[in-house]
Amino acid sequence: VFRDIVGADYVTDNPPADHPFLTDERHLFRGRAAAIVFPKSAKELGECVRVCNDAGIAMVPQGGNTGYCGGATPDQSGRQILFSLQRLNRVIAVDRPGATITLEAGVILSSAQDIASQHNLLLPLSMGSEGSCQIGGNLSTNAGGLAVLRYGTAKEMVAGLEVVLPDGRIWSDLKGLRKDNTGYDLKQLFLGAEGTLGIITAAVLRLHPLPNTTITAWLSVADIDNAVSMLSELRENLGDCLTSFEYISRESLNLVCEHIDGARDPLQTAEGNVVLVELAAYDNGELLRERLENELERTMRNGTINDCAIAQNDTHRRSFWRLRESIPEAEKRAGGAIKHDVSVEIASLGSFIRETRQALREEFPDCRISLFGHVGDGNVHLNVLAGSDVTAAVFKRDCAEAISSRVHKLACDRHGSFSAEHGIGQLKRDLLADTADPISMELMRKIKQTLDPKGLMNPGKVV
Amino acid sequence: VFRDIVGADYVTDNPPADHPFLTDERHLFRGRAAAIVFPKSAKELGECVRVCNDAGIAMVPQGGNTGYCGGATPDQSGRQILFSLQRLNRVIAVDRPGATITLEAGVILSSAQDIASQHNLLLPLSMGSEGSCQIGGNLSTNAGGLAVLRYGTAKEMVAGLEVVLPDGRIWSDLKGLRKDNTGYDLKQLFLGAEGTLGIITAAVLRLHPLPNTTITAWLSVADIDNAVSMLSELRENLGDCLTSFEYISRESLNLVCEHIDGARDPLQTAEGNVVLVELAAYDNGELLRERLENELERTMRNGTINDCAIAQNDTHRRSFWRLRESIPEAEKRAGGAIKHDVSVEIASLGSFIRETRQALREEFPDCRISLFGHVGDGNVHLNVLAGSDVTAAVFKRDCAEAISSRVHKLACDRHGSFSAEHGIGQLKRDLLADTADPISMELMRKIKQTLDPKGLMNPGKVV
Repeated sequence: VFRDIVGADYVTDNPPADHPFLTDERHLFRGRAAAIVFPKSAKELGECVRVCNDAGIAMVPQGGNTGYCGGATPDQSGRQILFSLQRLNRVIAVDRPGATITLEAGVILSSAQDIASQHNLLLPLSMGSEGSCQIGGNLSTNAGGLAVLRYGTAKEMVAGLEVVLPDGRIWSDLKGLRKDNTGYDLKQLFLGAEGTLGIITAAVLRLHPLPNTTITAWLSVADIDNAVSMLSELRENLGDCLTSFEYISRESLNLVCEHIDGARDPLQTAEGNVVLVELAAYDNGELLRERLENELERTMRNGTINDCAIAQNDTHRRSFWRLRESIPEAEKRAGGAIKHDVSVEIASLGSFIRETRQALREEFPDCRISLFGHVGDGNVHLNVLAGSDVTAAVFKRDCAEAISSRVHKLACDRHGSFSAEHGIGQLKRDLLADTADPISMELMRKIKQTLDPKGLMNPGKVV
Repeated sequence: VFRDIVGADYVTDNPPADHPFLTDERHLFRGRAAAIVFPKSAKELGECVRVCNDAGIAMVPQGGNTGYCGGATPDQSGRQILFSLQRLNRVIAVDRPGATITLEAGVILSSAQDIASQHNLLLPLSMGSEGSCQIGGNLSTNAGGLAVLRYGTAKEMVAGLEVVLPDGRIWSDLKGLRKDNTGYDLKQLFLGAEGTLGIITAAVLRLHPLPNTTITAWLSVADIDNAVSMLSELRENLGDCLTSFEYISRESLNLVCEHIDGARDPLQTAEGNVVLVELAAYDNGELLRERLENELERTMRNGTINDCAIAQNDTHRRSFWRLRESIPEAEKRAGGAIKHDVSVEIASLGSFIRETRQALREEFPDCRISLFGHVGDGNVHLNVLAGSDVTAAVFKRDCAEAISSRVHKLACDRHGSFSAEHGIGQLKRDLLADTADPISMELMRKIKQTLDPKGLMNPGKVV
């Protein structure tokens, strides 16, 4: 019946167990599917969803399959239908005076960035996986990434949305108005809901003027407290031209230098940690660069930073960012890490990290901690790798649960989040149920029940 | 019973019909109330709401009572309870490294702005009523105002929220994290819901670095198309330092000069319309001012603008803004206007306005049109005043309905909004039901039914 809707070439029945769409990026989950269906439009998808809804068949939507929490992996029943959004890949319009882009869910993030910049506009959503992740997945997981400090998370960029509801009808608000206070803001229901309330098929995203100049600096700092001080000083003195403020611990940098070809510390330091900072200017950037240099001199004198390098050209800049973006790959090559994605209020990042390090060192004295991430957003990835005494596989098998509960508990104790940007998926679903405020869980379940009464839309994820 | 909860001094039983809380800012609606209750805390409010919920009594929350759509005015039954939030007026915390402010719903917007700026931070929400409107009302109506172009609407500033639910329980998420993807974003349900799903009692708002310099210019333009061109050119060449881009038609300016003491056109022009533009700089602003001056020279040469003045000091700047912000008062003194709050995509603002003017002129040849607003957001206030042949009262009585339907239809025909920033309240409730997409209405009603099954929370508003 799906063949009649999407065409025979676009249905894969009984895909083999090793089909790449049936496991997640981190290989934490393996699923089965009765079929993988590749609709070409919201209309086709809507018809397929209606069939599933009528027949009581559960559905799993999937974008670029780059998520970290198994949100796009079906269960092992082999009865679920996997909808790949990859053929909904049209850029529908770029509105230059209104500074918006209207596109389908399956557009690759980096393609959307490219098209925006061809119109002299900036789509600021940016992350390591941008070459393969898709807009629909970005919005469904409310992706964060490297420029949240200045531009916000994925959902904050949305001016309009189109969604296939669990019963197959299409709800559409693609007007893309900057302001529209006519009733409840329904699009918010679907943004960040990981496909559990409907399937996002298209969106209007707000764009920004394209900066003329980007200034990127690599700063050596003693610790996270110095990084946080530096953040405050730069924001106070240079304003909100600051677009990224990323932290790279010495351990993370060492992993990259060890496992990634050609990677080297730009400052050739043997110790200390790193802040990667980026600023945007709408002129040739000379004045801003001069002011940044003054700030760097001043903060080197007062001891906030120890050393620094400003990228001299785009190649140089890319080499800085490559070091930051290669951390997950380096961790993978080192055997893989027990990953965490925590946020706390910025002022207590330092004490949270110290406390967590100490707790882990006491219980797991040989473990290595690769700490990096978006300090400007209070969000760090605190990833734990096996020490030399044990293989990575054994370490993860034996220690993942204990380590993750410890890290998550310490974050929650400080009113932090155990999933700042990666979402819940199936990986953290029980954790959410166990730790969330009961009223929040009740409200979430009521919303799920109201919008998806049969529970067929990406079941087993989030709630 | 309310006296037992909030104290005898804080309940006004059977308030007189002329009590200021029982009519709205525009005097479009008059209501009655069984009592006005002034709780001091979310806890007190929660207990009062529980009493109402158990007894089946409808409730109306009210902030500064500055809304334009009657959203905070009770009905005429005399059975509703009006909750004034004005005693929930504590600023709970300012987090400087995290750049947030945590405050209760009854804090006056301008007080919150002042406190932020004492900490060298900017709360960018800004509007004419900021001296009396309250944060809770701003968030419940998703207020827009004068700096949406750069900083977004009220809801876009929210990092945390506390709400009394319709059954009296308190749902609280005041962690204020910049990023937290743990389940559905529940706060979005209450932002912009005009108190129909719960009563906002506190919030965490995100702040920005405080600009060091503000540059404000008054530009004379031939028409709205030139204004839109100027917006594109400034954004493209100066970037997103542009914080406000306001349009003032000649008719609006004339009304202000006629009715407001001391008001005069800074350029002493006899014709043409005006754009009021403001830019923020994080240094002494010299370079930005120079670049703006170059842009103004260039756009005068190419005919986009006709003349211009840059404010030379803060008094000068304030006098520009006073002209813009006095328009509603001038309209009031001229007898009052039939107000509209429409948005369309920026590229079609010009044709929308021309078409609307022509349609109104044909049907109501003597009417005067005061057009002004946030052109940078595609949002204009197209207000219609009586001509000299008829009194304002008669004009409004006889023509308001016909004029408003005409304006709203023309906006909707262009996929625009008939309420860009003022919300729905009771004024536009039927209009929403008549014009909204049926699936949207169904979803809104389901959400309302799910969260407020007894329908006691601000009934008769929005849905």
